Parts: sequence; C-alpha cells; structure tokens
Amino acid sequence: MIRQICVQGLGFVGIATATVLATVKNEVGNPLYNVIGVDLNTDQGLNRINSVNSGHIPFSCEDEVFKKELNEAVVINKNLRATHDEKVYQNADIIVIAINLDVKKNKRNYYKSKVFIEDFINAIRILGKNMKKDCLILIESTIPPGTTKMVVEDLLKEEFYRRGIKSTPLICHSSERVMPGKNYLDSIINYWRNYSSNCAKARQIAENFLKSFINIKNYPLTYFKDTTSTELAKVLENSYRALNIAFIYEWTLLAEKIGINLFKVIDSIKKRKGTHDNMMKPGFGVGGYCLPKDGLLAQWSIENIFHISNLKLKMTIEALQINDKMPLHTFDLIKNELGSIKGKKFVMCGASYLSDIADLRNTPTKVLYTKIKEHGGTCHISDPFINDFEGVFDKNDIYTGSDFKDYDVIIFAVRYDSYLNLNPIKFVKSIKRGALIVDTFDILNDEKIKYFLKEKINVIGVGKGHIKNMKDEIS
Amino acid sequence: MIRQICVQGLGFVGIATATVLATVKNEVGNPLYNVIGVDLNTDQGLNRINSVNSGHIPFSCEDEVFKKELNEAVVINKNLRATHDEKVYQNADIIVIAINLDVKKNKRNYYKSKVFIEDFINAIRILGKNMKKDCLILIESTIPPGTTKMVVEDLLKEEFYRRGIKSTPLICHSSERVMPGKNYLDSIINYWRNYSSNCAKARQIAENFLKSFINIKNYPLTYFKDTTSTELAKVLENSYRALNIAFIYEWTLLAEKIGINLFKVIDSIKKRKGTHDNMMKPGFGVGGYCLPKDGLLAQWSIENIFHISNLKLKMTIEALQINDKMPLHTFDLIKNELGSIKGKKFVMCGASYLSDIADLRNTPTKVLYTKIKEHGGTCHISDPFINDFEGVFDKNDIYTGSDFKDYDVIIFAVRYDSYLNLNPIKFVKSIKRGALIVDTFDILNDEKIKYFLKEKINVIGVGKGHIKNMKDEIS
Repeated sequence: MIRQICVQGLGFVGIATATVLATVKNEVGNPLYNVIGVDLNTDQGLNRINSVNSGHIPFSCEDEVFKKELNEAVVINKNLRATHDEKVYQNADIIVIAINLDVKKNKRNYYKSKVFIEDFINAIRILGKNMKKDCLILIESTIPPGTTKMVVEDLLKEEFYRRGIKSTPLICHSSERVMPGKNYLDSIINYWRNYSSNCAKARQIAENFLKSFINIKNYPLTYFKDTTSTELAKVLENSYRALNIAFIYEWTLLAEKIGINLFKVIDSIKKRKGTHDNMMKPGFGVGGYCLPKDGLLAQWSIENIFHISNLKLKMTIEALQINDKMPLHTFDLIKNELGSIKGKKFVMCGASYLSDIADLRNTPTKVLYTKIKEHGGTCHISDPFINDFEGVFDKNDIYTGSDFKDYDVIIFAVRYDSYLNLNPIKFVKSIKRGALIVDTFDILNDEKIKYFLKEKINVIGVGKGHIKNMKDEIS
Repeated sequence: MIRQICVQGLGFVGIATATVLATVKNEVGNPLYNVIGVDLNTDQGLNRINSVNSGHIPFSCEDEVFKKELNEAVVINKNLRATHDEKVYQNADIIVIAINLDVKKNKRNYYKSKVFIEDFINAIRILGKNMKKDCLILIESTIPPGTTKMVVEDLLKEEFYRRGIKSTPLICHSSERVMPGKNYLDSIINYWRNYSSNCAKARQIAENFLKSFINIKNYPLTYFKDTTSTELAKVLENSYRALNIAFIYEWTLLAEKIGINLFKVIDSIKKRKGTHDNMMKPGFGVGGYCLPKDGLLAQWSIENIFHISNLKLKMTIEALQINDKMPLHTFDLIKNELGSIKGKKFVMCGASYLSDIADLRNTPTKVLYTKIKEHGGTCHISDPFINDFEGVFDKNDIYTGSDFKDYDVIIFAVRYDSYLNLNPIKFVKSIKRGALIVDTFDILNDEKIKYFLKEKINVIGVGKGHIKNMKDEIS
C-alpha cells in the first residue's frame, strides 16, 4: 500500500526531503510513498508550490541528481506534488516538519534575541487540527532543545482533546544534517542520523520510515529516548563549528601582526587526524542559515523552556558575536592599507556565503558591501554563478564583466574554483596598475601573490601576515 | 663517524629524545650518535643524572620499550650517558634543547602571569659560551612565539661575538609532540613534525638529523622558513584542545540541569569524521604540563616579544580559566547533593591527570582534594598505579585498601581501565550502604548506575543529567 506523506515547508530542506521520499521504491520497483509538499498561501509559498508542480526546484541548485529526481517524481511518476491546502494533512500517514524556526538577533544584547516560536506553534496547531490520530509527526527542523516535549506534544494533545481524540499523538524528532551543494540529495541518504520519540510506537514507525530512505548499513541510526537530546545535538554541533571559527579569529589578528601565514600553520596542525583536524581556518566571515543562530536557540531554551536562571552559554554566544563582526576585519585591513575608503571603487568577487553553493543567506559579503558604502566607497558585486541578487544587493551594483580596470580594490571573498584557478598573468592585464587585491580566504597562493607584487599590484590577505615579509623581500 | 649529540634537560621529553637518538643505527647496524644528556647540578638534576647513568628512567613510565631501550643504550651499547658538566657541549655536533619554560599563573589576572624566560635565557647562554661555532642548536621546547628569533639567536650571537666567532649560529626550532603513555618512544618516531631554521645551512643539518630518527615516509616533515611559525603552531594546537574542553563545560552545566546524558549526545555528533570528531567530552578537569599554560605563552609574546598593545587572545585565556576551575564543578555537584561537606569522609579514586599515565602534574584531583579539606571533609587518595604522591598529596591521606566501607563519598576521577571494568556487584559489597558515588568522567555505564541506585547507593555524574530521570523511574 502506498503511504501518504506530507512535508510541511518547501524550503531548502523540505523540497530535498520530499524528493528523496518520492524516489523510494518497494521490492517490485514501485514508489513506496505518495508525497505532498505543503507551503503557505503567500507569494513566496505559492511561488515554491508552482515551481515544484512544474517539476522545478525554486532555488538555485548545484545538484543535478536533485533536479532530475524532482522532475521525474512530479512529471513522470506523479507521486510528488505541492499545495497550500491544509486538508492534505488529513490523509497523511506521516508528516515531516521541515519549516524554519527563525531568530532575529538583538545586536545590542544577543541574549535578548527574538526566537519566532509563534510561527512554529501556528504550524504545529494546523497539524493538530487536521492530522489522523495515528499519523506520525517527524520533526526535522532545528528547534530550541525541549520544544518537542514541552511545546509540540502539549499543542497536539490540546488539539486532540478538542477533537475528542484520546490517544497520544505520535511524535519523533530527527534533525536533518543536509549539506547544500553538489551532493545535496546524497547528503540526506548517506549520512548519520539521530532520532528520538515520545513513545515506543512512534519510535517503531519512525525507525521504519528513516530506514526506508537512509543508508543505515553504512550510517546506522542513533536512538535517544528523550527528544531533548536530539534537539540539543543539532544546536551543539553547529555551535561547535561556530566556536572554532571564532577561536581562529584572535589568532588571525596575531598572525597578521607578526608576519605569519596562519593557513600554513593550521595545515600543519590539521595533520593530527582525530584530535586536531577539525580546526578551522582564518576567513572572511560566517553565513548561511544555521551557524549564525543555532547557539541562540539553546540559550533561548534555557530561559524560556527550562526557566533556568543564571546559566549563560557564554563561549557559544560570544562566538556568534565574533563571527558576525568578522567581515569588518577585512574592512579594517583595507582601511589600514588605503587610509581612506571615500571615493574608492570596490568590486567584491563572490557573493555566496560558501564556496560550493549559490546561497546568499546571511552572506558576509553583504556586511562588507554595506560598510564600504557607508564609508563613501562604491561597491560592485561579481559572482560567477549567482544571477539573482534581489533583496540582498542593489541591482545597479551587480557587475557581470571580466575587465576590472575601473576598480581600485578587488576583493576575493569566496573560494570558488574559478578564483582558485585564476591565471595571474591574464588577471593582471584586466586590472588597474596599482590596484589593491584583497584575499579573504587563502584564495591566492604565494606564487601568485609574488607575481602580483612584482607587477606593482598591492596585495593584502586575512591571516596572511607573511605578505608583509614578501613585500620587504621584493623591495 | 659517530656524531656527538647533547640533550639539554632530562625531563620527560629530554630523556625520551635522548633514548630514541641512542637507538639510531647506521647502515651496518652501529650507533650513529653518541648521546649525552645534561641536567643541572641540583638535587633534582643529580637524581635524574644518576638514574639515567644506572640505566633507569627517573619517572614512572608505562612504556616498556622505552625502559628497555634506555637500559640497553646505557648498559650495553654505552652510547648514552648523563652529566651536569657543561663542558660536554664543547664537543657536541648537535644540541637538542628539551628544557621547560614554565609559567606561574596570576590567578587574579591571567594576562599578568609570569613566564620564566630568565631560566631559559640562562640555559641558552651556557650553550653560547660552550658550543662549537658550527654546532646545530635544535630547540624542542615549547616557547613563546618569537623566542627563537628574538631571544635565542640574539643571545647566541652575543656570546659568539664575545668569543670572537664571526659566523652565524645555526638554529632550528622543532617542537616535539610527544604523547606520554604506553607508546611514549613511538610517539617521537611515528608522528608529524614541523621544523624551521634561521638559515639554509641549519635547515640542511636539521633535516638530516630529524630524518635519522623520525619515520618521515609515513610522517613527512613540514618546513617553515620562519621559526615563529613552528613556535606558534605548538601553542595554537594546545590552545585549540584547551578551548574545546572549556567549550563543553557550559553545555555540561546545561545537560545536567535538563536531564541529558551529554556523553551520548557528543558520541552521536563525533560520528561526523573530519568536521566534528575532535569534539571534547564533559570531564573532571585539565591537567598536565602543556594544556593549562600554552595559551599564556602566546599572550606573553604579544606583549613582551612583539610589543603589540590591545591584542588579547580572549577566548584562549578564558578557556584556561574555565578549565582551571572545572574540578570545582564536581565539588558543587557533591555539595548540592549532600548539603554539607563537613565531617564527611571522601575517597578520590584516581590521582593522575590522564587515564593512560601515572602523572600528577597539575592534576585536577589535587584541586578537588584541597577544596574538600577546606570545607571540613577528610579526603583520601587511591590510585591503582601511582605510588609516589610526594609533594602533591598528604602522605597520611593515601589509601591503598580495597574496602571502601569507611567512606561517605567515593569519587571516580580518572578513566583507568580498572575503574571502567569495575564489577558493580562486588563493588557494592565493599562500600557503605547509602554512600554517594561520583562519576566525573563517564566511568560508569547506565547499567551499573541503575544497579547502584537499586542497591540504595546514590550516584551523581558530571554531564550526566539523565541520572535524575533514572532515579525517578526507580522510585
């Protein structure tokens, strides 16, 4: 029997999950699931719904398999469609929750940041009003620890009570660990998963469901009895990454002052596999959806779910603050080199927050872009594979050319392959003599930097104190 | 021709290095080096010297190969001996510096901690006065970044000038990354090494020397042009570990409050190899020689070698402070459970700072021991394989029995195998009914904890908030 699956939320994760589920086959090769993606009846929601129903991903996407599988599921197999109609939840055997739980930072006091729990509560209530009593709710969203037990379960029980349903709602929490990029779909199937449930029956259904699309042979599932553990695991693992990025920042400042190439030093340390190879490197800043905010979800829980006073995740929150300010360090480096920003023409190469994907969410490029304009510089944005900069950068500031002769400062902000493979001889011909190149992320190797310096092109770099020494040697 | 090697400093690292060097053979199987270990003409120094000259390691040691190789080198091959006579430096082709550079923390203000650079300077001066002009100085000590270039090189040049030697002293820096324990010697031979030098000639000699005893086939050397990079690498890699221990502390507090087993959560995260598997676990505290202090060496450099104002390694130093206080958290847990410490009888099982070795340096056990006594408790120390507690614990407080019936509180502080393999049924018979067991390091699994609770033995644990839930289930 084909099971009915709803996926609530057609964002990055929701569409990918829906697509993977639509590809699952039974023993004789027929689809195991009929999948319906649900989003809101808003402009954004309808846009996503229409896109999915025409067989296309509504986001820029680097994963060709993902594109193909979505199209096949919608157009050929017809076991994947999207809607804003909440009534579809009434027939669902399993509902996967893949909606956002957003945070708005209080820049003056991160501890007072706003967590949009209300939006999440509203979404859960809709499920409670519509779902079958034995439908499994599987929460994939990253949420404050304790939310499943203290918020979701209570809400669903309340709605069940209103509807005269006496049984306990079946709830499971299992954070996705999707990695955007070329292997988007694969990162759902071939990766480690935690899961937890509110009861044995929910556990059983969830386990069978997860097994049906995750390669558990190579990536066995880890079960937790309490849902708070799996929620905590997700925010802790992202806080760990954010912390280790922030940690390197203070060593970056030191390396720059004392003439050290910190990238090379860290490479030598990372050889110690298992103990030191998670070490992060100097960089331009942190973007994306998760790393800049997940620590705040845990801090919010402490106060608003567990009502614990006097417990602050100090290092965790401090790390987020350091990372948010990190792009301004590149600004300081430039200002220190130029004296004044006013009237200078900048081009920033790279708009995405990460090298392997076209994704503008919380991109540090925006932070530096804004700062440069505030200080009277003009700033154009160039990116080899993002076309849609809407709502992030000014349309007039998008630069699609390859001749940089107009610019006083050229900033490399993302480790795109095309930048890493830059031909220095050709590049020098395309830029202004005396221009300043800014390498924010070890994009240029020493050979190229030396060539630029010899050609009277100035170069500075984040974490690359040794460029000073190279300049001394050349002059 | 047999080369003359001196090793300055017969501490943990010096004796191990000297022993490895004495085992190096040429193509026909004869010793390549004649090795002389040098220590000071003090009680401690003479004790070490006499011990080495009788073929024995003057420290407790878990590495049987190390014991055997040292004995063979001294007694049979006779190419290793020890002395306090500084004149032996006059014949050395290579001098390996393996002396301590100690730090005394200013507990009120870590930024004002004292670095004993004077002792290091005196040791270098002795070399400068005695060494041949073409002798290579290889510094293995962990020292403040910049010391080789700004301190050692200047000192040696000064002494050369006084002696009328015009050539540049040959200097290399290459931090050891020795790991104490069962594979002590092996960790010198089979491990990654950085090295750097003040000139091409020093590089060449150092490279050949390092190649002669390091397995460079599997662990290729990494060369840095400037000595500050290799110095920085060492203090950064240890600061990274210290930071990640401190980071988990705030999540430990949270996990305990909200009923989570943080060890299990972290295990599930560490499955993500390469990105998350360096994550540290909750624990009792940080000891040993390096991790509690190395960050302070870098901060000291900033102010005293590079004279940079307004640059603080804030996260790095904060981590050291958190780690130093960590054992007091176990105290708080106990106090919270017992109400009062006064008159209670404690036994702490485990005195070493780490599980695989018998090493009391900066052991967190001492911190808790002191705190318990301050609060009017008695505290005995039990350890399965340390015999010599001198200068660390009170002789009268050493407990060597196996019957714990006298004690109100039994604290497991070190993950020794014998504790991990504890037989709970036998153990319950050896302790007082109603006693409190404190698990500081995930030494007891849930099965054992459940058994203890059922037998009316109380249990609490660092990072083990879930024990509360187990108690609720049982009662």
